[in-house]
Amino acid sequence: MVQKKEISKSVLKRLPGYLAYLKNMPEDSPPHISATALANALGMGEVQVRKDLALVSDGGRPKIGYLREGLIEDIEQFLGYDNTTDAVLVGAGRLGCALLGYSGFEEYGLNILAAFDSDPDKVGTDESGKPILHIGKLQSFCKSHKVLMGIVTVPAAHAQAAADQLMECGIKAIWNFAPVHLDAPPHILVQNQNMATSLAVLSVHLQAQMKPKKELEQ
Amino acid sequence: MVQKKEISKSVLKRLPGYLAYLKNMPEDSPPHISATALANALGMGEVQVRKDLALVSDGGRPKIGYLREGLIEDIEQFLGYDNTTDAVLVGAGRLGCALLGYSGFEEYGLNILAAFDSDPDKVGTDESGKPILHIGKLQSFCKSHKVLMGIVTVPAAHAQAAADQLMECGIKAIWNFAPVHLDAPPHILVQNQNMATSLAVLSVHLQAQMKPKKELEQ
Repeated sequence: MVQKKEISKSVLKRLPGYLAYLKNMPEDSPPHISATALANALGMGEVQVRKDLALVSDGGRPKIGYLREGLIEDIEQFLGYDNTTDAVLVGAGRLGCALLGYSGFEEYGLNILAAFDSDPDKVGTDESGKPILHIGKLQSFCKSHKVLMGIVTVPAAHAQAAADQLMECGIKAIWNFAPVHLDAPPHILVQNQNMATSLAVLSVHLQAQMKPKKELEQ
Repeated sequence: MVQKKEISKSVLKRLPGYLAYLKNMPEDSPPHISATALANALGMGEVQVRKDLALVSDGGRPKIGYLREGLIEDIEQFLGYDNTTDAVLVGAGRLGCALLGYSGFEEYGLNILAAFDSDPDKVGTDESGKPILHIGKLQSFCKSHKVLMGIVTVPAAHAQAAADQLMECGIKAIWNFAPVHLDAPPHILVQNQNMATSLAVLSVHLQAQMKPKKELEQ
């Protein structure tokens, strides 16, 4: 792996796509892959892909490309997938429990240790055996497990309060599933996973698609 | 509601945030809210908020602002939340089942009718009583229910094949949870909900945060 440089968020967002493609190539693929081949496969610009790969790996050879296995390793190392990140989740509703029990995150190095909720009736263990604890235990849990990532899955109205509690517990990065803006100081990263936004984009596209048809029907 | 204009994706992405804030204001809030007040509450630029709101509602009055209830209605109507969009889901693994059983989407007008999987052992009903059908039934189901939205929750290696099948069934919008780029013709909207990307951004931020601490410890 190359010496870590400051890397822009837009580069960072493209890396998981490269990784997924490389990891899902057929087993009988040739051992090397060029930036050009990767760019063509993903419908992206060749120059962009070449620059992105050079930022995370120095394994590229002219006219040969990258050894696929080595490139996968370099991207995974860069993205921290080879280290496990422990996280806590606040809000053990339907979405929170779905995320708590979802085993697919392990592949990305994310380990959700426990969920927290203010509702005493939710305290216990979920189907996968992970603990759901009362929110009052958040601080001591985060300190003793040295947790740095928090996941917010409470309703929008309670999301800022949940984020504030997490930050008081020493959390440095928040994955926000609530459809609201969260205030946080600059050294705390808030990453929004706004499903409502995606649904809005999809829904408006469908409305536009259906419009001409409706007009024809009249 | 105003006459629908062409609206950019970036405006579209901000609307659900306004909506969530407006819907979650305390019950005893004044009936009117100005673009300035909304901008301040969300830490956004006043000019941007003012322009965005004018695109979806003509209810704004100088020095008074918008009637909150009316503005909520206008945004919901614009985003199509008042119409139900039927969708099918391909890939009844952990994530697929979590989404299938998640009731929170109703609020956004999304109704997932059924999940489809190529594994005959998964066929049946999920915990919430929704059907999981064999992928062979996708075409007839989509035609008879006039489904226009498809949700892809299969592993990355099978995502393009799933998308191709959905498009053959007349799907016009795809919500893609697989961490890969999907090829689609221009009239089909692919909205990526890439959790792997979010995790990469969070993970790299945490690595950068921990670095100085580690150096001090040495």
